[in-house]
Amino acid sequence: MSDGSAARQRTVLDWQVGFSTSAEIAPERFVPATVPGAVQLDWARATGMPDHNYADHFKQYAWMEDTFWHYRAELPPAVESDVQRLFFVCGGVDYHYVVRVGGKVLFEREGMFAPFEIDVTAYAGQAIELIVRPAPKSVDSPVDRSQANRSCKPAVSYGWDWHPRLVPLGIWRETFVERRPAAHLVDADVRYTLSDDLSSAEVRCAITTAGAEPGRRVRWRLIDPNDKVVFDISDGLSADALRARVDQPQLWWPAGEGAQGMYRSVVELLDDTGDVADQRDARIGFRRVRLVMAPDQWEYPDFFPKPRSRPPITLEINGRPIFCRGTNWVNPEIFPGTITRDKYASLLRLARGANFNLLRIWGGGIVNTPDFFELCDELGIMVWQEFPLACNNYPDDADYLRVLDAESKAIVSRLRRHPSLAIWCGGNELFNAWSGMTDQSKALRLLNRNCYDLDPNTPFLPTSPIDGMAHGNYVFRYDDGSEVFQAMPKASYTAYTEFGCAGPSPVEVLKSFIPEDELFPPRRGTAWETHHAFGAWRATDWLNVPTLEHYFGPIESLEQLVERGEWLQCEGYKCIYEESRRQKPACSMALNWCFNEPWPTAANNSLVSYPDKPKPAYHAVAAACRMTMASARIPKFQWKPGDVFEAEAWLLHDGPDAPPGVTIDVVLRLDDEDRTLATWTTGDIQPNAHQQGPTARLKLPAIASDRIVLSLQVRDQPAWTSAYVLSFKPNRAVAPSGTRTMNL
Amino acid sequence: MSDGSAARQRTVLDWQVGFSTSAEIAPERFVPATVPGAVQLDWARATGMPDHNYADHFKQYAWMEDTFWHYRAELPPAVESDVQRLFFVCGGVDYHYVVRVGGKVLFEREGMFAPFEIDVTAYAGQAIELIVRPAPKSVDSPVDRSQANRSCKPAVSYGWDWHPRLVPLGIWRETFVERRPAAHLVDADVRYTLSDDLSSAEVRCAITTAGAEPGRRVRWRLIDPNDKVVFDISDGLSADALRARVDQPQLWWPAGEGAQGMYRSVVELLDDTGDVADQRDARIGFRRVRLVMAPDQWEYPDFFPKPRSRPPITLEINGRPIFCRGTNWVNPEIFPGTITRDKYASLLRLARGANFNLLRIWGGGIVNTPDFFELCDELGIMVWQEFPLACNNYPDDADYLRVLDAESKAIVSRLRRHPSLAIWCGGNELFNAWSGMTDQSKALRLLNRNCYDLDPNTPFLPTSPIDGMAHGNYVFRYDDGSEVFQAMPKASYTAYTEFGCAGPSPVEVLKSFIPEDELFPPRRGTAWETHHAFGAWRATDWLNVPTLEHYFGPIESLEQLVERGEWLQCEGYKCIYEESRRQKPACSMALNWCFNEPWPTAANNSLVSYPDKPKPAYHAVAAACRMTMASARIPKFQWKPGDVFEAEAWLLHDGPDAPPGVTIDVVLRLDDEDRTLATWTTGDIQPNAHQQGPTARLKLPAIASDRIVLSLQVRDQPAWTSAYVLSFKPNRAVAPSGTRTMNL
Repeated sequence: MSDGSAARQRTVLDWQVGFSTSAEIAPERFVPATVPGAVQLDWARATGMPDHNYADHFKQYAWMEDTFWHYRAELPPAVESDVQRLFFVCGGVDYHYVVRVGGKVLFEREGMFAPFEIDVTAYAGQAIELIVRPAPKSVDSPVDRSQANRSCKPAVSYGWDWHPRLVPLGIWRETFVERRPAAHLVDADVRYTLSDDLSSAEVRCAITTAGAEPGRRVRWRLIDPNDKVVFDISDGLSADALRARVDQPQLWWPAGEGAQGMYRSVVELLDDTGDVADQRDARIGFRRVRLVMAPDQWEYPDFFPKPRSRPPITLEINGRPIFCRGTNWVNPEIFPGTITRDKYASLLRLARGANFNLLRIWGGGIVNTPDFFELCDELGIMVWQEFPLACNNYPDDADYLRVLDAESKAIVSRLRRHPSLAIWCGGNELFNAWSGMTDQSKALRLLNRNCYDLDPNTPFLPTSPIDGMAHGNYVFRYDDGSEVFQAMPKASYTAYTEFGCAGPSPVEVLKSFIPEDELFPPRRGTAWETHHAFGAWRATDWLNVPTLEHYFGPIESLEQLVERGEWLQCEGYKCIYEESRRQKPACSMALNWCFNEPWPTAANNSLVSYPDKPKPAYHAVAAACRMTMASARIPKFQWKPGDVFEAEAWLLHDGPDAPPGVTIDVVLRLDDEDRTLATWTTGDIQPNAHQQGPTARLKLPAIASDRIVLSLQVRDQPAWTSAYVLSFKPNRAVAPSGTRTMNL
Repeated sequence: MSDGSAARQRTVLDWQVGFSTSAEIAPERFVPATVPGAVQLDWARATGMPDHNYADHFKQYAWMEDTFWHYRAELPPAVESDVQRLFFVCGGVDYHYVVRVGGKVLFEREGMFAPFEIDVTAYAGQAIELIVRPAPKSVDSPVDRSQANRSCKPAVSYGWDWHPRLVPLGIWRETFVERRPAAHLVDADVRYTLSDDLSSAEVRCAITTAGAEPGRRVRWRLIDPNDKVVFDISDGLSADALRARVDQPQLWWPAGEGAQGMYRSVVELLDDTGDVADQRDARIGFRRVRLVMAPDQWEYPDFFPKPRSRPPITLEINGRPIFCRGTNWVNPEIFPGTITRDKYASLLRLARGANFNLLRIWGGGIVNTPDFFELCDELGIMVWQEFPLACNNYPDDADYLRVLDAESKAIVSRLRRHPSLAIWCGGNELFNAWSGMTDQSKALRLLNRNCYDLDPNTPFLPTSPIDGMAHGNYVFRYDDGSEVFQAMPKASYTAYTEFGCAGPSPVEVLKSFIPEDELFPPRRGTAWETHHAFGAWRATDWLNVPTLEHYFGPIESLEQLVERGEWLQCEGYKCIYEESRRQKPACSMALNWCFNEPWPTAANNSLVSYPDKPKPAYHAVAAACRMTMASARIPKFQWKPGDVFEAEAWLLHDGPDAPPGVTIDVVLRLDDEDRTLATWTTGDIQPNAHQQGPTARLKLPAIASDRIVLSLQVRDQPAWTSAYVLSFKPNRAVAPSGTRTMNL
């Protein structure tokens, strides 16, 4: 919803901020505040604190969680109050806050996601105060994410295995004073119902106004994606919504499936002369979203005693099942108030470039701003939106539930109009032991209730994973010595909604935050550890030197460390994505953990280094997610002379089109020699269907190289060709006992 | 809620009923109507139709589904309308109906469970009409339960594998005209919140009145189970609920766990002189109910990729986990309007006598009347209450959802005050292939929403089975030749909420509805088949002669058929119940399919024959459900000479007490000789914990008898002794090829 009325005028306030030990005690010092932003950044800037991203400097910010932060600014001068009103408009404050003028409390709220506005006409020219309480912390919790278990504050900032402990506070959303006509539009909520055959839509617009007498004229236009006016109606204000019908609406499709047709709704409040007194614009997209069962899933279970069939997780858009190639999105900044539209755009274009069509917005982080969803609408990227619950047991507590109720209603009301919004989800891993919530938890029943009441046509999941779905693993090589190459073909799930394969950040990123004397070899107790190379999940994650040394032997340099880590991350992710895709239609989703990161990590499962630098794994995953591509199922990563190499050829196709069949050469590069192991001519390619081809084999000779490269070369369609770089270990005794290994 | 006011006077109307082809066409003939009852029974009585329970006579009732039924009666004479009012009060009409006076529609509803009342003061002395539409049937459905898939009409009467096709219609609940003071109580809704430690309860009473001016005095008393007044407060009428606190409330416990303490709330509306103008009584019981995880269930899953942990299904009452020994309850009559409080009492006392503490009220049937829940409260029998959805795909259809919304709100509002009400559940087997609903189905999201809004402290399950739970099997011997003796120890579920083991009805029951010339041998196409001996589930169910002949050879007489069927049913059920119990605490529920039946079946999984005649299996199950008992895990049902017989001894104990340990002799009867195979002295018995004892073994000699009897004889506690009658087949060639078998 944007404001297009010339009758409205915004004034950005000149904010200052300081801290004290209570809401009643004025700060000793005020410093200039950037709004939106975070109190930590304001204070750091004013006092010359070092960059929180470098080394362990973030620890110097810790004290700022526990103080009261006082914002102050001066409201604009008075207006003629019977003609115009002044509104203080705020998109959100992180986290528990009160707004005062002259000591009088005008507004108080716990919760960062619901916007608010206050008529401040009577307070024009006075000082407005916005006081932010200390970060919420459950009593008796250890200093970790469990401190967030009774609030709607995203848990991630309390510390995670890829996020430092740094809890933002402050005004994080756009905030201004707006001068409006006394009679103005408050909301114009456009909803639609598509006919079963999608050939028409009934569109409704519920208009709410302030200061406008009943019967005042309103005008509503809908403009199609080609800028053609679909309808243009006007009526007197009444309690009933305006209604219209759209025949043959241009549907919104996810990327790769069709166009992202977006309509524009324009609602105008007219004055007595027919002039526009106020205006509200909104963009809507017509699409039907459902979660449906994969075709074969009703067959299970086929034995007695008999449990339920697994729940559906196949997204169907406009009647078409969609295989979701995607990723888990996390906060792109530690301080969400600093995320700009450009930042979102840069990362979302990368996501689109990776051939992703769905992002899971993980419940440990924030709910993103309108910019994010507008961009997803435009790019055709579906959004799985979680509420801010993650890896905690959020209790059946009346105070907590009251805040969750208000925040969730605000979130759903704001986002439901976006065609990209495909799934609501209660939060992350709530039904696993480390959280301890269940289907009976009131928080999740409340969220299901609110989603049903406010957006009943969008699917709701209580958490991820649910029955049939799976998270993990987060390593290339499992504790039992098996690899993703063996584990994934044995797995049988309806959706892989988290899986990780860690890799180091690029060398130049590492150098940007690790002091030079700590750079190599990586050691615990250095910036490597504070930036998650060690002790992040298990002791050796996310750098995981033992796995690197298992395959490649001792590591000699930073560059070699990074190159080897990147190699495993690339081939690991390709294996998991492609294997998940091969399991279609029983499986319908492959989302790695994770896409991006909020600060520069030393090693992480991410595909993109902070702020928006693609790692080699990004390109590997983009290749593994092409809608049409050759793909190989390969039984292991590392080979040796005498092994019978084998690879099963597939042609993957997720698109709605039916291109002609192709011929694929299965080629293995041994040193400088290309050996064609098999040639496969596929059948005609059917929409949204894969083909399984031959298994090619070769007994491996001894070669000089440390790698062999398998390529599936698609004749006449080079864009569908795939290649896999596999380890070759000519000499079993690369790292005999006694060889120097890194001292970690 | 009962009405105790002397100021109210009820008049039972004198009803007649007839049928026609529309609501606008008067019937050609009226006959006397019994209210509550069913139009079918009225018409049959008046016209001399034969008993629907005998042979296939029910088929003669089929036409009555498809006509309009017109009830008529005369309202009582006028009252002084400023002092008194006349209310037409109706507990429920089955199913879609309109109420008219003088052709004017006063009320219309689809749905049989919501009661209604109409102020008919203005129509005193006039004729009232209540017109019932034809039974609801989905268009294009076959003539089976799927016709009920767009209504809240219980699906069972459209035909089930133990219920004939016979769809009741008519006024099925108590209906009368009541003379009330013009100012009277409409509702006095008592709710409570227990403190976490259960040591006190905050009690609230929301009073609604009609015709009473604000400030009118009300008095509220709470009387404890010993008839002691806990509090006696009075106040002026206001929008706020009355509030009081109960210290150390006497808690309500399920049977076997403690007393069923029930309090009585008395609310009086006082007149100006302080006299009682109107009164509402209610009984409440204080208890806290939760579904909790079994202790070891958080450990699962312990592998990657990792799905969720199984949902909780252990009922915890007042902080104590309870193993639920119970059964599935079905309509005790085809025509629910004929179920009396005595009928409920007879069957519920049998349920209590079977050591059951929970009844699952299966979603294919009706929601029972207040009598049922009052009796369950008194007897300590917990109720798992399903909404009327079963084995159909109830659609995301606005009209259907509107009816379900109203009906479910009425059901929850009425039943939530009963301490016996332990679980709300969406309906039966909705997440299996034959239904095709999913977690996304709007009907189930709506039910979860309404239960959360109206009764948030009672657990809600979308359906049975859910993940971790199981239904079935419904046979003693599986298609693969295995038996429940092998299948159940291999199963690993959190709850067995349906399992069946069919047996024939007693000989005298069979003779009551099967014509003499059809009695033996049982054949298809006779009353055996219409009463479910054949073709009910699979071709041979529920009589299942092939299984009987597999174990016992050719059957020579009706008496022998019944005796052998009863034997299998008894031992099968004992095996399943006791094995489920041995799997505690991972498993916490064992509920057989089913307890009772709505008409006399020829063979069925039921424990009690219609109307309330216990089958031998009833007594076997009662024994298998004793709170404390010796139990044997036995690897198979049929033994032969040379087999090494074995039996694993257990002591089962579900009670909260800790009796001293006991000594158990494991004794096998071989012909007339008792051989003691082992003697086991248990440890001290811990509350709610079993003990596993020795496995006793004996190489079996040849004996003369067709059976061996294993008994676990508990010294000094004969009530805990258990016995198992197992088949012995001395000669392998009992039924050689060519032997006469029944011609079925």
